[in-house]
Formats: sequence, C-alpha cells, structure tokens
Amino acid sequence: MPARVEQPEIADRRSRRVEELLAEMTLDEKLAQLVGVWLNVNREEGVVAPLQDSMQGEDVKFEAFAEHGVGQITRHFGTRPVEPEWARSALAARQRWLRESTRLGIPALAHEECLTGLAAWRATTYPVPPAWGASFDPALVEEMGRRIGESMRSLGVHQGLAPVLDVIRDQRWGRVEECVSEDPYEVATIGAAYVRGLQSTGVIATLKHFVGYSNSRAGRNLAPVHAGAREVADTLLFPFEVAVRDAGAGSVMNSYAEIDGIPIAADGHYLTGILRDEWGFEGTVVADYFAVAFLHTLHAVAADAGDAAVQALTAGIDVELPTGVTYLEPLREAVAEGRIEQSLIDRALRRVLRQKAELGLLDDDYDPEPSGPVDLDDAGSRDLARRLAEESVILLTNDGVLPLSGDRRIAVVGPNADDVAALFGCYSFVQHVLPHFPGVETGLAAPTVLEALRAELPDARISTARGTGVDDGDREGIPAAARLAAGSDVAILVLGDRSGLFGRGTSGEGCDAESLDLPGAQRELAEAVLATGTPTVVVLMTGRAYAVPSIVEGAAAVVQAYFPGEEGAGAIARVLSGAVNPSGRLPMSMPRGTAGQPYSYLHPRLGAASSVSNLDPAPVLPFGHGLSYTSFEYAGFTADAEVPAGQPIRCSVVVRNAGDRAGAEVVQVYATDRIASVTRPLAQLAGYARVELAPGAAARVTFDVPARLLSFTGRDGRRVVEPGEIGLSVRRSAADVVDELTVTLTGPVYAFTGSERRLTDVSIEDHN
Amino acid sequence: MPARVEQPEIADRRSRRVEELLAEMTLDEKLAQLVGVWLNVNREEGVVAPLQDSMQGEDVKFEAFAEHGVGQITRHFGTRPVEPEWARSALAARQRWLRESTRLGIPALAHEECLTGLAAWRATTYPVPPAWGASFDPALVEEMGRRIGESMRSLGVHQGLAPVLDVIRDQRWGRVEECVSEDPYEVATIGAAYVRGLQSTGVIATLKHFVGYSNSRAGRNLAPVHAGAREVADTLLFPFEVAVRDAGAGSVMNSYAEIDGIPIAADGHYLTGILRDEWGFEGTVVADYFAVAFLHTLHAVAADAGDAAVQALTAGIDVELPTGVTYLEPLREAVAEGRIEQSLIDRALRRVLRQKAELGLLDDDYDPEPSGPVDLDDAGSRDLARRLAEESVILLTNDGVLPLSGDRRIAVVGPNADDVAALFGCYSFVQHVLPHFPGVETGLAAPTVLEALRAELPDARISTARGTGVDDGDREGIPAAARLAAGSDVAILVLGDRSGLFGRGTSGEGCDAESLDLPGAQRELAEAVLATGTPTVVVLMTGRAYAVPSIVEGAAAVVQAYFPGEEGAGAIARVLSGAVNPSGRLPMSMPRGTAGQPYSYLHPRLGAASSVSNLDPAPVLPFGHGLSYTSFEYAGFTADAEVPAGQPIRCSVVVRNAGDRAGAEVVQVYATDRIASVTRPLAQLAGYARVELAPGAAARVTFDVPARLLSFTGRDGRRVVEPGEIGLSVRRSAADVVDELTVTLTGPVYAFTGSERRLTDVSIEDHN
Repeated sequence: MPARVEQPEIADRRSRRVEELLAEMTLDEKLAQLVGVWLNVNREEGVVAPLQDSMQGEDVKFEAFAEHGVGQITRHFGTRPVEPEWARSALAARQRWLRESTRLGIPALAHEECLTGLAAWRATTYPVPPAWGASFDPALVEEMGRRIGESMRSLGVHQGLAPVLDVIRDQRWGRVEECVSEDPYEVATIGAAYVRGLQSTGVIATLKHFVGYSNSRAGRNLAPVHAGAREVADTLLFPFEVAVRDAGAGSVMNSYAEIDGIPIAADGHYLTGILRDEWGFEGTVVADYFAVAFLHTLHAVAADAGDAAVQALTAGIDVELPTGVTYLEPLREAVAEGRIEQSLIDRALRRVLRQKAELGLLDDDYDPEPSGPVDLDDAGSRDLARRLAEESVILLTNDGVLPLSGDRRIAVVGPNADDVAALFGCYSFVQHVLPHFPGVETGLAAPTVLEALRAELPDARISTARGTGVDDGDREGIPAAARLAAGSDVAILVLGDRSGLFGRGTSGEGCDAESLDLPGAQRELAEAVLATGTPTVVVLMTGRAYAVPSIVEGAAAVVQAYFPGEEGAGAIARVLSGAVNPSGRLPMSMPRGTAGQPYSYLHPRLGAASSVSNLDPAPVLPFGHGLSYTSFEYAGFTADAEVPAGQPIRCSVVVRNAGDRAGAEVVQVYATDRIASVTRPLAQLAGYARVELAPGAAARVTFDVPARLLSFTGRDGRRVVEPGEIGLSVRRSAADVVDELTVTLTGPVYAFTGSERRLTDVSIEDHN
Repeated sequence: MPARVEQPEIADRRSRRVEELLAEMTLDEKLAQLVGVWLNVNREEGVVAPLQDSMQGEDVKFEAFAEHGVGQITRHFGTRPVEPEWARSALAARQRWLRESTRLGIPALAHEECLTGLAAWRATTYPVPPAWGASFDPALVEEMGRRIGESMRSLGVHQGLAPVLDVIRDQRWGRVEECVSEDPYEVATIGAAYVRGLQSTGVIATLKHFVGYSNSRAGRNLAPVHAGAREVADTLLFPFEVAVRDAGAGSVMNSYAEIDGIPIAADGHYLTGILRDEWGFEGTVVADYFAVAFLHTLHAVAADAGDAAVQALTAGIDVELPTGVTYLEPLREAVAEGRIEQSLIDRALRRVLRQKAELGLLDDDYDPEPSGPVDLDDAGSRDLARRLAEESVILLTNDGVLPLSGDRRIAVVGPNADDVAALFGCYSFVQHVLPHFPGVETGLAAPTVLEALRAELPDARISTARGTGVDDGDREGIPAAARLAAGSDVAILVLGDRSGLFGRGTSGEGCDAESLDLPGAQRELAEAVLATGTPTVVVLMTGRAYAVPSIVEGAAAVVQAYFPGEEGAGAIARVLSGAVNPSGRLPMSMPRGTAGQPYSYLHPRLGAASSVSNLDPAPVLPFGHGLSYTSFEYAGFTADAEVPAGQPIRCSVVVRNAGDRAGAEVVQVYATDRIASVTRPLAQLAGYARVELAPGAAARVTFDVPARLLSFTGRDGRRVVEPGEIGLSVRRSAADVVDELTVTLTGPVYAFTGSERRLTDVSIEDHN
C-alpha cells in the first residue's frame, strides 16, 4: 500500500487535508463520497457495441449525479467492450470534471473487477483461482497480481475487486471456480500473495466476500449459511486475517450471506469487532453490489432502504456499491430524522478520504491521466499466464499413456476440445460481459485445446468430434465420437463446464449444480469412448470438482485443468506432450457423488467413514493429490520433540527427484491435534513448498510451523493453543502419509486474540 | 410423572430415604447407581434363539456385576426374543436379588426401547413417527403412548427410550424415519403427547436426542453438525423445551452430535444451562449408548475414558448407558486422583435416587413383579395401531382413480407389495432385533399390503409380481411386472424402503442415502409400469421423503404411507378402497432431487428460489400437503388486528366439508414475521387442528397463537418478540395460502428467557 511508504511530511499533509475537508463538507458532499456511480459510456465514442439494459445502472448524466462529488466510479472499463485508450481518456475527463467543477474537487476512486486479470476488453485473462491453488505457487500468483495491478494503473484505475478468499465448502456452489482452495491455509497464502502483488503497484485489493459466503445451504448461491461461530472463526476468517494483517489489504467487501440469521452487511461483530478492533484494519469496507439494499429486499431485517443504510453504516460498511441506492436519499432522510449519528457518516468518510489521500488523489499535483502506451495483454503478461497455467494442470491418474508420443492417430473429442470459451472463468471479461454483446470478439489470441494439440503434436494424425455439448444433453453425436475413438490409437476427451453468470453456464455465479455428474450427456460420451477400449486421456476443464469415479477408474489418464486462461490450451497440450512436466496438486477433493456435499477434508474423526453410517465420505481423489512424469522420494523427516505452546515447531524433510526428468514436487506438511477441548480436523495443512528438482537432485525443506497456526477457538470462545500431542506429518496428499512424528506442546494453555495467528516459514536448501 | 401426584407425606418420606442413602453409600455403591448393565439372558430358560455376539454386552454374571447394586437394567426384554411372562419373572428375580443381596437393597430401573411400541417380541408395533406427524393428531399419539406405557408397566419396566424429538433437516439421514416432522412446532406437540401418554402410566419417557443430531453434515449419521447457536435455540431445542416444561418428561438422552466443535455429551451449556437452569428440568440425563466413551474414541476431546467420564458428568450426564464403560473404574480412578469433585457424583446420584424413590422403588413394600396376565399385543392396542395407521396415510395426488371400484383386474406390483418387513421401522423389535435371530417369526398377525388388498377387495381379480427388490437393483423381473400391469385395469405399485440398522436397510440408523431416488431399480420399475398406460396407484412405504417428481407427474394417484406398523397394510388397503377417507398430511417436504439437501420449509427469503441461483429449492410437494375423497372450503378468516407483543393473537376460520363423504381436514395456521432484526422463516406453523366433518358440516376453529411462540433469539442473544407486522395465514399446506391477514404487534420489544415459549390453544366448535 502506498501509505506504508509515504514520507512522514507527506502523510501529515495528507492527513491535514482529510480533516480540513471533513470540517468543510456538507451532508450532501459527505454522502456523495460514500457511494459509487455506474454509468453508461455508450453515448460517446470508442464504444464497440450497445450496452444491454441488464448491464447498466441508472441512465443519468454523470455531471448530474456527481454534482456534490462521488466516491467511486464503478466499472468504467469493465461494463462493456471499449477501446482502452479512449476509455482511459474518458475516465480522466470525468476526474478532471470532478476536480474542476465540484465545490471540493475530490476525484473519484475508480474500481474494476480483476479476479482473473483486469475484466476489461482484450486484457490478459489468467487461470481461475482453483488453478492458482493447484499451482501451490504464491510467488507466481504474486507476480500475476503485480501485472494485473500494472494494467489497472496504466488506465487510472485505483481499486480491484479481488481476490476471493472464500474457503471452498460445497462443490455444488457455482462460485467454487472463484475460490482458491478447500484449505484455509492455502487460501490465505495464495490470497495474500495476490494482494501483495496487486498492491505493490499502488492498486487497492478488495477481499471478497467477508465472510461465510461459500457455506450457503445446499450450495445454492446466497442461501442462508448454517455455520457456528467457531467454524467461522477458525476456518472461514483465517484467509481474511492473513490478507489484512500480513498483506495489508486496503479494502474488504462484505459477503451477501447471512450467518445463523444475521446478514453480514448488518453485522458489526464481523465488520467492526473482528476486522477493525481485532485485526486493526484501517482501509475501507465496500458493499457487495446492492448488498445494503438487500437488507431490506432480500433479508427482510431492515424495514426500508433508510433502515438498511443505517444498519449497514452502523455495522461498518463504508461505501455503497455499485451506486447510491440507500446511502444517498434514504440515508439523508435517516439523518434528518435523527435515526443515525452523523459521527458514523464521518467515520466512513474519513476512511474513504484517507484512502484517496494515500493514493495521492487529494494532492494538488494529482494527474488523473496516466501517460504511456496501453497494452493490456503484453508479452510478459501472456508469458506469466502461460507459466501459471502450466503449473496448474494436475495429472490425476496415468497408466503410462502420458506423455503422448508424437506420431499416432489421436481422436480429440468432447465439447471443450475446440471451444475457446472453455478457457475462461465467469469473472473474466469474456464470460462476464461479452455475452451481452453478441458478435464482439474476445480480442485475445487464445487457441483452443484442439488447436494447441495440433501445434504441439505436428506428427500426430489428429481427428476430432464434439460428441455432445457441455450441457445440451444431445446424444446424437456420441456414436460418431465413439467410432472416431475406436479407430484411433489414443483418444483425448476434453470435458467440463461452461462458465457463465446466473444460469447462463454450468459453473459461475448463480450457476449452482443439481448434480456432481458432469453436465449434460458428457458422462454418456465418456462411457461410450471408454467402452471402445482405446486408451483415453480425459481432460477436465471445470469450475468445480465433479464426481467422476468411473472416469478415474476407466481412463488411461485424467488431467484436471479448471479454466486455464488464455494461454491454458497450450499449457494442457504441453503437459500431454511432455514438454511440461505436470506439477499441479488438487486444491479441492474430488468427491464420489453428489450426496456427500458439503464436504471438506478438514473434518474431525466423525467426518470420516465409520461404522455408524453406511456412507463413506472419502473423496475419490484427495486434496493435495497430483502426479508427475518423474517420481519423488522422501527421507529424513525430523521434527522438534517438545515445543512450548505458542512457539514455532521446526520440522524438515529431504525430497529427492528419483526419476530422470526435471520436475516439481509440492511438499506438504500437515498437523493433527490429537486430543483437544473441541473437535479438530484429523489433519490440516500447516505448510507447503513447491520444490523444483533436476533429475537426481534433492533438497531439504524446513518448516517453522507456529503452534498458534494450530490454534482454535476454545470452549470459552477464546483463541488457544493447548498443550499436548501434535502429530506432524509429511504427505503426498491429505490422504497419503509419508511419515508422521509426534511433537509435544508443553506448558499451560496459550491464549491470545484473533490477531496473532502466524504463517509457517519455509526454507529450501540443496541437499546432497 | 408419579412425582406430581405424590402425597406430601409420601414425598417427604421418600426424600428422606434418598438423603439417608446418599449419606450411607460408598463410592462403589454410588458409581454403581450411575450405570446400566446389559447382560445376556441366554443362559436360562424361555429363550427362543441364541443371542448373537454383536448384540451382547459383557458376558459376566449379573450378580458379579451388581455386587454394589446397579442403576439400570438395559433392554432385558428388547435384546432377544423371549417369552414375556418368563422374562418378567426373570427381571423380578434380579430385582429381588438386588433388594435382598446387596448391602443397600436398591432395585434397578429397567429401561427398554419403545419408539414404535415396546421393542419386545410380539408387542404391538405402531407406525413410525413420520406417520404420527402425518396424522396431525396428538390425542391419538397420546393414547398410543399410554398403551405403550401400560405394556411396559405390565412387565416391570420403568423407562422407555422414546420419543425422538429431532427436527427433520436432511432427507439423506437414515434416522428421518424416527422423527416426527420437519416442523418444530409439530414435533413439540406430537412429541409432548407421546410423553404425556407414556408417563400417565408411570413409565418415564426419555427425550432423544438432546440436541442437534438431525443436522449432521451431508445427512451422514453422527457427522459433525454445522449449526449456529441461534438455529439450535430457535428450531432444534423447541420440542425438547415443550416436552420438558409442558409434558414433564422424566429423562433426557444426549445427542451423539457435536455442534460447531463441542460434543453435546461434554457440553454443560445445553445439558445443564439450558435444560436445568432455564427449563427447570429435574429428571435424569442418560447417555446415549456408549456416548460417554465416544468423547475419547470418536470425538477426541477427552484424553482417556476417565477424562471422558469427568467431562460428561461435569456437563450433566447422570447415567451412563448401556453399561458402565467409563462411569465405573475410570471414574473411580478420576475421583482417587482428585480430577473430579465427589459433589458432582452426588448430584447425579441424587437425581437417580429421587427418580427411583418417586417410582416407589425405595419403598419398603415395593413389589418388583407386576401381577396379571401379559398381553403385549391386545385387541385395544391393535385397534389403536389401526386407527393411527389409517390417519397417517397421505393421499398425495389423485386423478380420480381412487377410491378403487371393486370388480377390476388389479396388478399389485413392487418389492413392498407382499413383504411384511415393509411395515416396520428400524426401532421396532422386528427390524432391530430379529435379524440377529434368523428363522424367528415376528409373532405379529400382520398382513402384507397384497394380503390386505385381497381381503379388502374380494371382487377384484388381483394378480401380482415383485418386479424388483427394494435395493438389489435386479431388473430381470421388470418386464414381466410391466406386462402384468399392461394387462390389468389398474396397477398398484408398492415401492419404498426396507428399514434396518447400520447398512442392513435403505432407511434407519446408519442407513443414510447416497441418492434421493428410490433405492435399487425401483425407479426403473415405476417407469416401466407407468409406460404401459395402465392407470397406476403408487404406494410409497418409506422412511424418508424421496425425490419422485416423475412418479408424482405420471401416476394416476400417489399414496405416502411411511412404515405403517402391524395394522398398516389394512389401513392402506382401506384408503385405496375408500373404506377410509384419507386425512394424512405431509410432515416433511418431498424434494425435487438429491442436491437440494439439507432443506427445510422454514427458510427465510433467501432460502427460496431467487434470481441469484439457477436452482429452485421448492419441493415437489410441500409440508402439510394431503388430499381427501371429499373437499373442504374455508371462509370467514378473522384475526386480531393489534396485539401487545407477548400476548396471544386470536384468529379463527370456518371450515366446511363441501363434498358428500365424511372426512377430516387438518386446518393449518402459519405465521410470518415480515421484518425482524434477524432473518425469519417466510412462514412457520403456528397452530393446527384435525377436524372431522360430516358431509355439509362446518366448524369454526379458533387459535390463540401466543406471540411468544413466534419469538426468536435476537441479535444480542436474548429471546424476544419484536413489535411490527405479523402475517397470519390459513393454508392447505405450507405453500398453499387460503387467506392471509396482517396482525400488528404493538409495544416495546418483549424479551424473556427460553423457558417461556408457549403453545397455541385451539378450540373447535360446530358452525352453521
């Protein structure tokens, strides 16, 4: 954050400026700073296609709306396909108008979506968050965040609405594809890396969705969350805590969720008590779009829009997005009627102005128009998108068919084989916005998997058939696809989801799953192709973990790719050819069927199979699983025998590349609190390291696991580390233990506040 | 409870005796009173078949085990098929031995399972609890409780381990068949009726499972419960509160569950804070079988058996069942090591001894052997079983095919058509115990549905085919069954579950569902029969609500019967013939598919369909739905316009039988808290009345709905009634509104403790 590097005299000057403004502002001017404006840009030049009604806000003139100023400009680049350079100028013009034509001259903060890259036309589109999780490579994600931030900064955008830090709890939920992992430690470390990268450019990251959203009942989007306070505190809050405390995130967005009857948008316990009082957060809390109004219209905990505004502001929502539905007129009336103290408006306003000050927006020499050329999809970003995609492809099974040899007859089959849409998640510009603009090209040079395979395997004789659509249920093409497979040496079956919004896809926001079978007739297609006996490689390009036990059983190899981004098809092709040695690991368990949801590997003993139920909830493939074309051997696992509760536990292990190809192993350390005063997971990820090793090379990986990382909310509600035995294990996946040692935590119970959880330090050194 | 009618001088004497004993007892004698003994009775006469290993406890001599006395004798009649009169004498002999051969001469309390009737050989077996729920007839359930109590009293049994008051939350859970309803108000009223009936005979009722068991993750038995404190307080605790406060239940059994990390067996908040301090409960808390040991072995919150005993006793579990795994030697060691205060042992002991004193067990003239003949399946009980079964059959759909006319060709098809096992739930002796004794007859004169239909429709030409088994997946018989249907005028397709324990059935304890499709190949059988075009009546004999949208759509009529007990086949046949006019109503929603679980109709607005998800969670048939062979009309719905918060709201409605057959309507009143400080259900059942009406007759039904019935846990954790608008509606089901009025609750927020929720008073008077 810029604030952290401000020189004292500049900080002082900016702070004075904030207080001067506060003293001077009218109520109208104050309220204007607490809302965004989401306006058409289709009256002007540079527009590629007309804006659809469903995508637009109030159709008012900017100058009329912003008469008293405005806090945020909402998705100027991300609402429609516009030429970036033109739109940059248009945004700067508005900023100049705010500076010159409003009484106080305060520019707006411009925010955009940016989960898989800036959600603007022709901007680099990276893999979706589960792919980041699969990479287990925070450094690469940090680099992605930095490049995304640079692209935003080059346009004059100040804030990005990412990352999503929701912990995956239920595979039926459509927004799983926006989440990093089923494990909160992984979400925390990967998410914090994104925040660091983005904010290193001066762009504010926004943590979504604080908190509980992923836990909705039966996985249905926005359905009530039935979670206890301990589950929220110990599992769901952790990534936010790390992103706030360690990575210094500048903004937080509330979750639409209600937890146990209280909507987060009205819950001061989380928005103020935890976030600010415990964690010391000093940035802004912005409302998820329309979330304040939802307190009245969807949650029915507010009697009207004014009541909704009062409750949200009191709880701690500083800024209403996308625009001022409740924080303008309704809130003004509430103030007039004495239903809220003006001090609460000033509290939010001070946070908003401080952030503008820290960004330099209140400086006299602020220039709203960045200079230099605009290239939202430059070679460096594409290269990074390629590397992240390559690291994220997971080899789930392989009987030796992979890597493919070149000169064979290959049938490339399936709905995702030759469709560029299979590459992108729902918060990409391609899936989020372009469906409203039929005929507009993606503007990205993104090959399909089929095209990439043809390029990667020039000697192969490749033929292709679609077989069926993603979710059309059409079975007519299946026999022909099977015949094609039968006449080939190898079949590559590319299956999965089509991401979209609100029912337009099989994955994505509002696209929840009735079944964890593959959508449409894809299972029938797979069965028909597998039945031919031709060795079949199944590539899954999905937004969630599907239940595909028969495919895992029957295919010669299975590759999981999620939505790999614009460079993802090449990454998949190179993994299949062997040009890239796969190193991804599952960031979420692959379930056996639909009925086992919700599920998390982080369950206590009674969450596992037992004699008291006929059902075995164990996944088909566990969290952390992934194969390589080489093999890795472990040796010499050591750990401290005794550690005072509250101190780090040191453990280390040697990992060796025992094969003849270079490759990367994800070394995973798990901890088990064997007896605790509350039930604890049978194992939780406590550290990981992605280690690249040449053939024969070895490394010693050392983890300093803070005991307080293993802390939990005790029976009295306080966060504690209890003395006793901790099992510390090295595993190839959550279910595959290489070695386990017992560490005894000594001393009395170590109790502390929620703001002191720590991450594991990891070091890697060569080993001979 | 006997205590309530004790004369003061007797009560005084008994109370003195308790204190005398307490003062006199050694630690061994004290601990002995806190445990049960579960012993073979197979060394002696009167035994029908050898006891299987899996059903027996420690194979020790009773006299050795009970050297210092014993608190409870566990399932003396319910572990194996024994001749009741012989077993009564054997029990009395043990009681005499305890009186005469132990130092203090304290008899044991004998307890048995009794959910669907005393779980003893040849005892009347009633319908399962969902059928009680379907009847909406607490008076009949109370009468059943009384008859069950009389049968137990005739044997010298003191305590019954029923009713189950868990609120249905997830249809995947196998124990749904042991629960009354998805609605806590219905569970409370029906459950309290059972308690009143049972305890009117002096037998102690035991409320199961306190609390949260039904809410296990993904419906898997004993899996952790992810519920918030408000959900537990407002939904799950309510039936227990009513059964304790209003019905005076004498005993409570803990739930195996953990809620949000804390196992109930170790949770003093619920076992002492709520149950005793708030509700004033003075009876005993008994452990679910092995639940104390599970604190160590399954929950891992106790370091060893002694720690488990200390935690359970401290939290408030008084008696360990089925026997003394932790409350004998491990607890003795914990006392010796000073890990627990003896006062906690005395606290539990005093409760146990008081209960024994109130039952007269400590009186000098106590006679352990009841006199009189033993008939566990007398005509009166069978008649009651018939009436309850008749009232519980639900006519879900009917295109006019029902009632059946007599002289037709009828094909009776399906795995439950001619199998007596389809009549019984998993806690019946037939399903719980007899599978361990192959070849032993049920001892009940229970016809199958096929037999009952032949008796009920003597003029019909009935032919039959099984088609497939319940869950064998065998499709071979399907074509023949379909041909039989094709050649008939009507097909009756009898489908459903087979109840059993721990994987032996498709419903029952430990028999959780992977899918809410009908088990095995039954859906294929139904599709084949429906495809013939022969009008088909589908009868569902199940333990849960299956997702059968295509059957609801395609069948000429659908009848839901759950497991209807020994007289249930006749009840079904008489509903089909029209001899009985069906009056059952769904006590649980019938879902659309597997993926929508967990589900409850008691959801707030965001639990319903909305634009933010593609999934519609609405059930195929809603809670409260059921048809009749007559029709009912409503008129004149009135309600108080303004009521002070905390006072009852009076509303009334006239219901008229507008058809030409006598019938019963279940008048249902629902309440909606339109705006509240926490999210509230869109509607909750606030009163109901089963009204029998002759053709043309009408009745005015008046409900006094206590506003505090609509209370909830406010944001600050206190129970409140808030002023504002309540929608009060008469509905034919939760989803079918006849009329709705607005009632305004006036005055300030009305706050009170959890011990003051009240039930609705209902009165019915003739109306002209």
